[in-house]
Amino acid sequence: MKTLIVHAHPEPKSLNGSLKDLAVSTLETAGHEVRVSDLYAMNWKTVVDATDYGAQASNPLSVVRDSGRAFDAGTLTPDVLAEQEKLLWADTIIFQFPLWWYTMPAILKGWVDRVFTHRFAYGVGEHSDVKYGERFGEGTLTGRRALLSVTVGGPESHYAARGINGPIDDLLFPIHHGILYFPGMAVLPPFVLYSTDRMTGDDYPDVAKAWEQRLLTLESTEPIAFRRQNFGDYEIPSLHLKEGLEPAGRSGFGLHVSG
Amino acid sequence: MKTLIVHAHPEPKSLNGSLKDLAVSTLETAGHEVRVSDLYAMNWKTVVDATDYGAQASNPLSVVRDSGRAFDAGTLTPDVLAEQEKLLWADTIIFQFPLWWYTMPAILKGWVDRVFTHRFAYGVGEHSDVKYGERFGEGTLTGRRALLSVTVGGPESHYAARGINGPIDDLLFPIHHGILYFPGMAVLPPFVLYSTDRMTGDDYPDVAKAWEQRLLTLESTEPIAFRRQNFGDYEIPSLHLKEGLEPAGRSGFGLHVSG
Repeated sequence: MKTLIVHAHPEPKSLNGSLKDLAVSTLETAGHEVRVSDLYAMNWKTVVDATDYGAQASNPLSVVRDSGRAFDAGTLTPDVLAEQEKLLWADTIIFQFPLWWYTMPAILKGWVDRVFTHRFAYGVGEHSDVKYGERFGEGTLTGRRALLSVTVGGPESHYAARGINGPIDDLLFPIHHGILYFPGMAVLPPFVLYSTDRMTGDDYPDVAKAWEQRLLTLESTEPIAFRRQNFGDYEIPSLHLKEGLEPAGRSGFGLHVSG
Repeated sequence: MKTLIVHAHPEPKSLNGSLKDLAVSTLETAGHEVRVSDLYAMNWKTVVDATDYGAQASNPLSVVRDSGRAFDAGTLTPDVLAEQEKLLWADTIIFQFPLWWYTMPAILKGWVDRVFTHRFAYGVGEHSDVKYGERFGEGTLTGRRALLSVTVGGPESHYAARGINGPIDDLLFPIHHGILYFPGMAVLPPFVLYSTDRMTGDDYPDVAKAWEQRLLTLESTEPIAFRRQNFGDYEIPSLHLKEGLEPAGRSGFGLHVSG
């Protein structure tokens, strides 16, 4: 495998930092190639603004148009180009981050906002009577597999089917489906650690063992069965899921997982 | 009303910029007080890191402990203190932003990550057999009302109950419930504009009229009926919703809305 790890935590000695380091050593020892985008260490520029498009920026700025034009012309900034190149190099992308306010930290969202440009991650492919662009199962990042490795401060019960925070699968759906599956990646079930606010060093050996096991079985792990957009499950262009495809009682985000 | 508008768009001449300006003028004309946090114009520092706690930062850094300690000691950075003061001043908070990758732009997430510190927005109140801290309906920001004003590039059908992106209410749930309701705010139904990628100046008068109408009826708008945590609906400490409270067939995030 060629694995890119996108890491988003400010403290190298944190649990997240340790899990990132363990992923590097475990995968390299197993003979895989690994590259790391350590966003805090890189001092990643987090916000989209006109400086991303230099003298070519429109006035008024249009993020969609300007980012797509810069992508086509090869004039995106070097930091963004480097991340796109890493994504194209990799066959597996691991995102290591703490769940802050039920989603990713701002620095990682800013990586998505800036790297997933128009014409690279969206605005790809033709629109016709049977196709609404190449997205949700097709697109630039097709053939790659993505995995979220997430630390959660609170207990697992709060993220269960009836838990007050909402089910973890639903909380992660906008990332899994909306960010990773959208440009074509297959998405593996996440590696989630709960109650990390109360973890001590004594807990780490078990955590490390579980993480190593996930890392060493990535190639044989079945992705989440999200439905592809352009292969008959959805009406075009409304992109409503056709009636009757889901198991009885299924609704919400779960509609977009088959079986 | 005393209204704080938190605005997150890089282009003042954008639709988002216009909606923010219209909110200011509409509310002020109606006799309300308005303050604006224009995050791009403020060059808002987006990422949490050790510099947020200066010489008091722990080594290794602990965001939870360090932010709570700085809050208690009054030593948070002036930019964060100013935002907390605005939130305490306001009775109504409007968030104006474009939906980027199915959630808020990084700069706004970074406002949440930095302003919603431990002891201010979480880690508030006692834990006992009948109470799991003051959150989800109680907390520091109780008595305030929050409203998301969101522009969405794609068409409304893609965000409908069977739409491929998932229902808009579910996509916004982690913000509505997890970020705004958590520290005590009541959350009004969002103001969402769709297909904004295809809007022209000709569409603006209708949009402006709809937005003005929402702004002028904020005080009489019923909040989303999220269930309060500590008032009998949830088991403590598992925070599972008690069986049988929901209408038949309700599941997922919808469990946490009553009625």
